[in-house]
Amino acid sequence: MSTLYLLPTPLGDDEKVWLLPHDLEKIRHIQYFVVEAEKTARRHLKLLNLDTPLQQLHLSRLDEHSKLDSLPEILSPLLQGHDMALMSEAGCPAVADPGATLVALAHRHNIDIVPLVGASSLLLALMASGANGQRFAFQGYLPADSDGRKTSLRQLEKKALAGESQIFIETPYRNDVMLADILSTLHRETHLCVASDLLQQTQSIISATIGDWHAKPLPNLKKRPTVFIIY
Amino acid sequence: MSTLYLLPTPLGDDEKVWLLPHDLEKIRHIQYFVVEAEKTARRHLKLLNLDTPLQQLHLSRLDEHSKLDSLPEILSPLLQGHDMALMSEAGCPAVADPGATLVALAHRHNIDIVPLVGASSLLLALMASGANGQRFAFQGYLPADSDGRKTSLRQLEKKALAGESQIFIETPYRNDVMLADILSTLHRETHLCVASDLLQQTQSIISATIGDWHAKPLPNLKKRPTVFIIY
Repeated sequence: MSTLYLLPTPLGDDEKVWLLPHDLEKIRHIQYFVVEAEKTARRHLKLLNLDTPLQQLHLSRLDEHSKLDSLPEILSPLLQGHDMALMSEAGCPAVADPGATLVALAHRHNIDIVPLVGASSLLLALMASGANGQRFAFQGYLPADSDGRKTSLRQLEKKALAGESQIFIETPYRNDVMLADILSTLHRETHLCVASDLLQQTQSIISATIGDWHAKPLPNLKKRPTVFIIY
Repeated sequence: MSTLYLLPTPLGDDEKVWLLPHDLEKIRHIQYFVVEAEKTARRHLKLLNLDTPLQQLHLSRLDEHSKLDSLPEILSPLLQGHDMALMSEAGCPAVADPGATLVALAHRHNIDIVPLVGASSLLLALMASGANGQRFAFQGYLPADSDGRKTSLRQLEKKALAGESQIFIETPYRNDVMLADILSTLHRETHLCVASDLLQQTQSIISATIGDWHAKPLPNLKKRPTVFIIY
């Protein structure tokens, strides 16, 4: 019986091996990979020093432009008895990326799914925020227009005040606008954590009430992958 | 400036080192630890082979019985210039455990918070479920009485059908009752993932529609740490 491994990738451009040694041993033999972008996947795989030379690995692409009817072909090596590994562009696969559709199909074929330990920016941000993690929600991206974003922020604040910490992300070039909208929209007593460049040299994690945020110099978030948490 | 490291622990009784090699190097020098239970913490720390002999490490307890007014004393080594590490009983600290209160206090003292990569049963289950991870919520424990649990399950099913995958846990001795209530309460088309003993030899991850669950032999979940996901 073949296995679909869920293989995390590094959050940034780190040159260090990002897998636990015993997990790396589990996947050294794999020749079939499902990836979001071939170029970054090959750069990551190069560091792992697998049993098979890099040029002989089989990489299938699964990204936001992939069509659902391409999934059976992507999955077919598993049905032919080959182990496979699913990788996302950064962090843990099948969370906030198209990989979940492949995992769902694998379950329908009763294929063993084995998730490996890796970095998740959402989870690292939640750990480091000081927010109550007993209940939390990840909301993905909020609306891109200012009115929609502010309406959404007010709804999330209500949920946060009811005890469910609210996690969301923004495309990096709009991070500064998001931060400005949060600070102008939410109440002074609400807490905001802004976690940027997680696991990078430039990592910064700031968590404070909106009132305290108003008294601080604001960080420059431009182009820095950032997780926002309201609690 | 001292640093509060957030130090994950293994999910089970594994004897393997569960930290990335470069993260282990960051914490070898630490002498002050905040732990949920001293006995398991010492067992975990023994495996790490730190610079300081095990018996000379300073362990402070922070658990569900701790009082908020004990937090400043627990935090005090950080203010005196010592690095500290916060550990939970299993998995990632400060998510669904009392550690978040200490992290929040550390932020108020402008102490650097550094989360380290580790295993989270919630995240591993979500990755392996096939559920849409673009939006999800962790609900902690549902009500323990059958009526309350079923009402709660129906509410979570509505949220799941609206696109927000719903993650929750149960105390292990009630897992089988929870599974029976889920199968008798939710619609046949709704999806359920049951992920048990994650990262252990006995790991099992089953994900299917409620209708398909009815056609399967049910797993024995008694005393097995389990994550439930409705989507």
